[in-house]
Amino acid sequence: MARYQLILAYDGTQFAGYQRQAQGRTVQGELEAALRRLGWSGKAILSAGRTDAGTHAEGQVIAFDLDWAHSPDELCLAMNAYLPEDIAARSARLTDDDFHPRFAALGRRYRYTLYCEEVRDPLKDRYAWQVWPGLNVDLLQAAARMLDGTHDFAAFGTPPRPRSSTIRSVSQAGWVRSEGEGLIFTITANAFLYHMVRRLVFLQVQVGQGRVSLEELGEGLECQKPQMPGLAPARGLVLAEVIYPPSGSLNRDK
Amino acid sequence: MARYQLILAYDGTQFAGYQRQAQGRTVQGELEAALRRLGWSGKAILSAGRTDAGTHAEGQVIAFDLDWAHSPDELCLAMNAYLPEDIAARSARLTDDDFHPRFAALGRRYRYTLYCEEVRDPLKDRYAWQVWPGLNVDLLQAAARMLDGTHDFAAFGTPPRPRSSTIRSVSQAGWVRSEGEGLIFTITANAFLYHMVRRLVFLQVQVGQGRVSLEELGEGLECQKPQMPGLAPARGLVLAEVIYPPSGSLNRDK
Repeated sequence: MARYQLILAYDGTQFAGYQRQAQGRTVQGELEAALRRLGWSGKAILSAGRTDAGTHAEGQVIAFDLDWAHSPDELCLAMNAYLPEDIAARSARLTDDDFHPRFAALGRRYRYTLYCEEVRDPLKDRYAWQVWPGLNVDLLQAAARMLDGTHDFAAFGTPPRPRSSTIRSVSQAGWVRSEGEGLIFTITANAFLYHMVRRLVFLQVQVGQGRVSLEELGEGLECQKPQMPGLAPARGLVLAEVIYPPSGSLNRDK
Repeated sequence: MARYQLILAYDGTQFAGYQRQAQGRTVQGELEAALRRLGWSGKAILSAGRTDAGTHAEGQVIAFDLDWAHSPDELCLAMNAYLPEDIAARSARLTDDDFHPRFAALGRRYRYTLYCEEVRDPLKDRYAWQVWPGLNVDLLQAAARMLDGTHDFAAFGTPPRPRSSTIRSVSQAGWVRSEGEGLIFTITANAFLYHMVRRLVFLQVQVGQGRVSLEELGEGLECQKPQMPGLAPARGLVLAEVIYPPSGSLNRDK
């Protein structure tokens, strides 16, 4: 028995969320079903974090203990043979016996894609939010710069447990233009509150459309406002990467 | 009653093809159902061409006659209110009473996307073909250059009617790299044979992997070979644009 770590990608459209639940198709449920066909008999796999219903991932990280006689690459291939089309194991590694993908993580990077067009585009709608009227990109960038650093994000999300800390440290936040009328927001932080990225995107879009001022956003960051309303759709959001210490377990071959 | 022309985008994944048929959900069927709710009672709408099951479009063109008391922009909005999420009218115009989107077209541009990665990526698979082992891009470009010009494409597709001409004129064909490990092939021609783009992509990928030589591709273009086997998956293909004379009906307001 050894502990394995997998990097996963999934299209969240057809999932009721990451976390296994009594009703509804979940990423965790599909992963555990595939693992059982490889002889896994654990109670639950470990993951770096839960993603919402409809949210995608290209860098989700899970870990589990398994008796496996072949190489990690062969484990990756075997998992992909049993997983449905909308989930894939992108790579597999042996890791420390006590590795926990959530507690070992130093940070997470999320990416949110939107496009500014008056008419919806069915070829973009699966992975992006249609926003109209268009956005002032200078205001978006100014809003993103305000997120940088350590803040109490109580106005932008709820903590995993009631009354636990709502302070998070953002190490990078910014917007780039993509092809066509697309705009991509990326944000890296040590951890995130529930719905935090989607709330921050919604608020920044309000700023970019001139509906909310930078001052109001700043008041939210100083907790002079109660929770600010509005949530960008889940389909624009991708868990891009979970970051581990360079000398840590991730990417270490044994 | 006046003739309207619409530019359409659709995600082909959930369609049995463009053309209406007795069984199965089709793009044409959905368009006609939406139009009927706006008072249309014609027999069939006209289109620039039929796309295969699973093939997408961002520039399909249709035309129909309708009594419509409002502006073309309002027609576009009304259509989008009744169309399902995977089809959208991108723009609408008044056009000549005898405009036919197929016969008036000077050419069509298609785009095919693939990505070269060993492991499938669920966030790319809806709109791209996973190809492995990777491709020699110089060979791909050399193959694309051979397609340029007027050729008998009998080895690469079937004409719309038996024994009709298989000669087509390609005015542009080439590959560009996209983000990540993506490669995009675009081809513009006066018209295309059935399955022609998907066959040409498949053969070029064979060339790029060193399985088929440029000479063999050339023999196909000189009709020294019977129909060459292999078809790239429909999901990588997008009908990008239908090209009309600059002074023609497209984009002309009345």
